[in-house]
Amino acid sequence: VTTWVIVVAAGSGTRFGGAKQYEPLAGRRVLDWSLHAAATVADGVVVVTADGAALGPDVDAGGTAMVVVPGGDTRSASVRSGLAAVPAEAEVIVVHDAARPLATPELFERVVDAVRDGAVAAIPGVDVVDTIRHRSGGVVDRDALVAVQTPQAFRADVLRAAHASGGDATDDASLVESTGGSVVVVAGDPANRKITTADDLVIAEALARGRRNEGVR
Amino acid sequence: VTTWVIVVAAGSGTRFGGAKQYEPLAGRRVLDWSLHAAATVADGVVVVTADGAALGPDVDAGGTAMVVVPGGDTRSASVRSGLAAVPAEAEVIVVHDAARPLATPELFERVVDAVRDGAVAAIPGVDVVDTIRHRSGGVVDRDALVAVQTPQAFRADVLRAAHASGGDATDDASLVESTGGSVVVVAGDPANRKITTADDLVIAEALARGRRNEGVR
Repeated sequence: VTTWVIVVAAGSGTRFGGAKQYEPLAGRRVLDWSLHAAATVADGVVVVTADGAALGPDVDAGGTAMVVVPGGDTRSASVRSGLAAVPAEAEVIVVHDAARPLATPELFERVVDAVRDGAVAAIPGVDVVDTIRHRSGGVVDRDALVAVQTPQAFRADVLRAAHASGGDATDDASLVESTGGSVVVVAGDPANRKITTADDLVIAEALARGRRNEGVR
Repeated sequence: VTTWVIVVAAGSGTRFGGAKQYEPLAGRRVLDWSLHAAATVADGVVVVTADGAALGPDVDAGGTAMVVVPGGDTRSASVRSGLAAVPAEAEVIVVHDAARPLATPELFERVVDAVRDGAVAAIPGVDVVDTIRHRSGGVVDRDALVAVQTPQAFRADVLRAAHASGGDATDDASLVESTGGSVVVVAGDPANRKITTADDLVIAEALARGRRNEGVR
């Protein structure tokens, strides 16, 4: 089954205070971690960056095809920019945020396998650990909630159809759902955290070094 | 205004695989970080542990009164055990989970000040960064949600009344709210994370060392 991954790395990092995807993280750039993991499951990778410029010689895609394209004004526009560069023969398309550098090859495999096994869309989810309140008051039952991560895998035709309407959403699964598709949640990884602040980069560094010591990568 | 802090450290650490509050964290035990921060705002601290045994000579409470009591079968029962040891003259009572060792003295001050300024209950909240879904399907508007932390400060009579009914809740603010009290949310601290897994301890270690290097503590 031909599988392509779109890695979205076009964000300006407003909250972070800069383009976090190019920061160093345990010996590589933040972005390179995602490219490395994506390449383990994909026939090809489309990287969406702010300017679409080449990524430099230190990207190791292990022989997987890699295309760099420029992003759009919103996250969904950037995904559409990536989609346009995915070959028509791709049957499974995965969307992943470069801001989650610690997504493992195993996690990529898990969502891709779910779609290969018949799901229209498969996304990683983890338990919500904090107590969650409505801003307007009142506690939300956290056991009824799941925190969604990327990589998110889709049947190619379904993802293309969801984006054909030109909508915008914080994740692609919501967009697929809003156009009638059903979404399967598979086990995510609590360590697969999104880098939003400078502290998050400190955290990712500690986790990445811990994994290296365990020989995971 | 007489202020006491109840530090809840009676959990068995089911998900962590042991009593995480006694693990080392950047040169102290996890629990000691909370005791140190609590002592900066409190006239006295009640520590609720599984067995109520003395904590050892390395606890530095900086001259603040410190009492250790045994916990109960649930988190709320442990808080009630702590409440029974708080002197009647306390006007503000703060409840804090020892599983959040990186709560700063400034965060303790913020919630206590809000109650001294007239709030019945004041709790720290931070933005929800992940996309959140209902397990039954469908995305929740994360901008309408806030993730709740401890320390949580209360007018003493209100907290005692909320616990008099003997209910159980994952946090005390919910209990106060369920008995009719209103809750003010103040700015929390994203670094004030709950330690649930072994990875969380790695994360806390990295953040604690980073702070020390910045001279924050």
